[in-house]
Amino acid sequence: MSDEKSFHMTPEQFRQYGRAVVDWIADYYGKIESLPVLSRVKPGEIRAMLPAEPPARGETFEHIMKDMEKLILPGVTHWQSPNFFAFFPCNASAPSILGELFSAGLGVQGMLWTTSPACTELETLVLDWLADMLGLPDRFKSGSKGGGVIQDTASGASLCALIAARELASGGRSNEEGCDGRLVAYASKEAHSSIEKAVKIAGLGRDNLRLIDVDERLALRPEALKVQIVRDRAAGLIPCFVCATVGTTSSNAIDPLPEIGRICRQENLWLHVDAAMSGTAAICPEYRHIHEGMEHADSYCFNPHKWMFTNFDCDCFYVSDRAALIQSLSILPEYLRNKATESGAVIDYRDWHIPLGRRFRSLKLWFVIRHYGVEGLRYHIKRHVELAQEFAGWVEQSEEFELAVPPPLNLVCFRHVAGDSFNERLLERLNQSGKLYLTHTLLKGAYTLRFCVGQTHTDERHVREAWKQIQSVAAEIER
Amino acid sequence: MSDEKSFHMTPEQFRQYGRAVVDWIADYYGKIESLPVLSRVKPGEIRAMLPAEPPARGETFEHIMKDMEKLILPGVTHWQSPNFFAFFPCNASAPSILGELFSAGLGVQGMLWTTSPACTELETLVLDWLADMLGLPDRFKSGSKGGGVIQDTASGASLCALIAARELASGGRSNEEGCDGRLVAYASKEAHSSIEKAVKIAGLGRDNLRLIDVDERLALRPEALKVQIVRDRAAGLIPCFVCATVGTTSSNAIDPLPEIGRICRQENLWLHVDAAMSGTAAICPEYRHIHEGMEHADSYCFNPHKWMFTNFDCDCFYVSDRAALIQSLSILPEYLRNKATESGAVIDYRDWHIPLGRRFRSLKLWFVIRHYGVEGLRYHIKRHVELAQEFAGWVEQSEEFELAVPPPLNLVCFRHVAGDSFNERLLERLNQSGKLYLTHTLLKGAYTLRFCVGQTHTDERHVREAWKQIQSVAAEIER
Repeated sequence: MSDEKSFHMTPEQFRQYGRAVVDWIADYYGKIESLPVLSRVKPGEIRAMLPAEPPARGETFEHIMKDMEKLILPGVTHWQSPNFFAFFPCNASAPSILGELFSAGLGVQGMLWTTSPACTELETLVLDWLADMLGLPDRFKSGSKGGGVIQDTASGASLCALIAARELASGGRSNEEGCDGRLVAYASKEAHSSIEKAVKIAGLGRDNLRLIDVDERLALRPEALKVQIVRDRAAGLIPCFVCATVGTTSSNAIDPLPEIGRICRQENLWLHVDAAMSGTAAICPEYRHIHEGMEHADSYCFNPHKWMFTNFDCDCFYVSDRAALIQSLSILPEYLRNKATESGAVIDYRDWHIPLGRRFRSLKLWFVIRHYGVEGLRYHIKRHVELAQEFAGWVEQSEEFELAVPPPLNLVCFRHVAGDSFNERLLERLNQSGKLYLTHTLLKGAYTLRFCVGQTHTDERHVREAWKQIQSVAAEIER
Repeated sequence: MSDEKSFHMTPEQFRQYGRAVVDWIADYYGKIESLPVLSRVKPGEIRAMLPAEPPARGETFEHIMKDMEKLILPGVTHWQSPNFFAFFPCNASAPSILGELFSAGLGVQGMLWTTSPACTELETLVLDWLADMLGLPDRFKSGSKGGGVIQDTASGASLCALIAARELASGGRSNEEGCDGRLVAYASKEAHSSIEKAVKIAGLGRDNLRLIDVDERLALRPEALKVQIVRDRAAGLIPCFVCATVGTTSSNAIDPLPEIGRICRQENLWLHVDAAMSGTAAICPEYRHIHEGMEHADSYCFNPHKWMFTNFDCDCFYVSDRAALIQSLSILPEYLRNKATESGAVIDYRDWHIPLGRRFRSLKLWFVIRHYGVEGLRYHIKRHVELAQEFAGWVEQSEEFELAVPPPLNLVCFRHVAGDSFNERLLERLNQSGKLYLTHTLLKGAYTLRFCVGQTHTDERHVREAWKQIQSVAAEIER
């Protein structure tokens, strides 16, 4: 960092402002519970406060920091508030924030091993660590034919899995000649919308995605899957890909991997397992059963950026045969591919995902695992599940509320007995209160509230307060 | 941030370690010129120094920081060194690093407007600013039918453009029924490999990508494009997409947008303009001519993470008709789509790219533009181009070296007159010296060295030293 005449920030200024930003963040976490969780600004309000034209001349960092507080903060929905129970969490932690800072400071672009060997090798190592921590079969580790890579999101990971499956099933033809409308993919009716998005992007067409029936727990019915595959083959189509979900977005339903896996083996279909949030639970021995059947899977993903205290974006994607993936996504002519990559001696991660460039994202993951240790991670994950189960117990005991489905882990789906429109009003009022943030879904046709415990700093008092608030707002509406 | 019993870092620790990381980064930039630009570690060397198992118990942050210095730093190739002349740059700056830190601290996930209105509205604003700064037509701004969005990389942006083009050309059929092998895409032989990757991912098939001939400056020949389109239509195929490059990766060739644009209008094809690195030059009035013909384009992207002092990842992607894009990528059923999104009153950016989740990436871009002002950005970009042109002048005057093509902006393609194997040896020795980092390409069949000036802190003395080093190593080999 050079001197002022060159317009750059000086090293001294960087130290000073860097310190100020660190303090700002610490102060932010100190006051986060006093802020309305869901931002209250109206459409266009933030933009209207900002100048329509870019500044001709540079401004001071003090000025920028003032605007952060005054103009930006009111427009923030506080994902890191312990009163955030909406969607799935997107939690973070102090060591992860510092990992991101290191990554930004180094400014490394790790598209090839050689463009920063540490970026590639640390990533491979940490993903092997995580495979062990989650109890994944060894064939997903880099010492085998498989391996892991950090992707942006589960959407990207599922798309890559689908592309690899598409290529295997078409004997490489879809890469060369394009899709021909005959490849078919399968997922449950409750699978994430990113599967439909992937099927459209990859040129299979939405008509060739079969959304399979679910059972009373909203998990995929394997026998329905089997029937549909047989029917599609009979119609001259080419089944190629099944996505099983470990923890669906709506209700956290866990698809039966052992049965689905056996069908995929018999039928020679690629099995992708999407465990975006719930995979993290497998770090605790008591919840590892969610991965039973993983020995049948061809690919797997989970997001430490959801429930493992690691800043977005960080999806961990594993394949049991990296050659299939690389074959599909390698972006350079044959003569630049190298045996070292496929043997595992050197990995060039650019061939493992859609983008070419990549950040040094393994740093934050490494920091989180080292800071908490397996012990610390288990402590918090178990705590979140226990808090959710406690909340579910209160719902069950209440006369006004009921569970929509039994909660498998840290997501509770529940509703007031007064029906859909009551629950809609309840949700709106709760979120307007600013004291907590919940979202909804439709389960078996009924409007259902979702309460997901997974924010880094959520503790018993937050869950207790939330339940009080829910009861009291419901009583207000009833009056 | 809670107390130690809970395994979390305390707020006091966060302030202390945060400060330490800021200082570490400042120190790193202070000594970066003394480090070998290209990492010297051997395959597996970094990993071998790290424990094979994850830590059962948490470790201290002091320990982690020591490992950053001792184990990670030797494995880093220093993209932020002023002696980095390889590939295209991936530059960063102090305000951008601090923007990343804010973004990590807030931990916002901006998939929907409502999940953090400021994340969406600041992004829309800053992308409108940039459209003005680059002299893009108004129809790419959010006040029109078009608009901009931050994507991860140009690979992602090109893929999205292709998907939108595919849908328009097939009347929405490829989204529903899948591709049928008849859609055809076009780019020059010198276009980036991400276009080929996109064509494969999107199910068009590599056989349906036409790599069009280039002229003596390695720019696409419009008349060859026209001939090929006519031929493809005659064969019953459906031309749908042309990618024109403003600054090819190999040689920085600039495809003739006005002529290509007219062909696309006549033939009703989607024109995507990939200006990944060179787009930044248009901030300077004297280089804005590179955008002549943009009035014909349907989409455009450039990467502030390459040459505009903004940390990776940050690609700015613009479309002139956002409805076509959203239509293709909207991931939820019809009943959740809303008029506000398409009218521009509220934008939900999840429908503008592949992933669902998204970071608050506009912060770093906003910080960079405000810190430098348009004036400061112009100063540095102009300086880089001038330094590259100065370097090109030295090459031209030299008897041992020659230019491979006239350098349009900040990339100089040159070679020693002694032939391919000499140049290969020269490159290897230069990079082994640690004093600079260059990469190569093949131009018109000949091994060619690439010298790209675009690192934030590259100044005249670095370019002068590099030229000295190149001459002296060449003389050594000759001896």
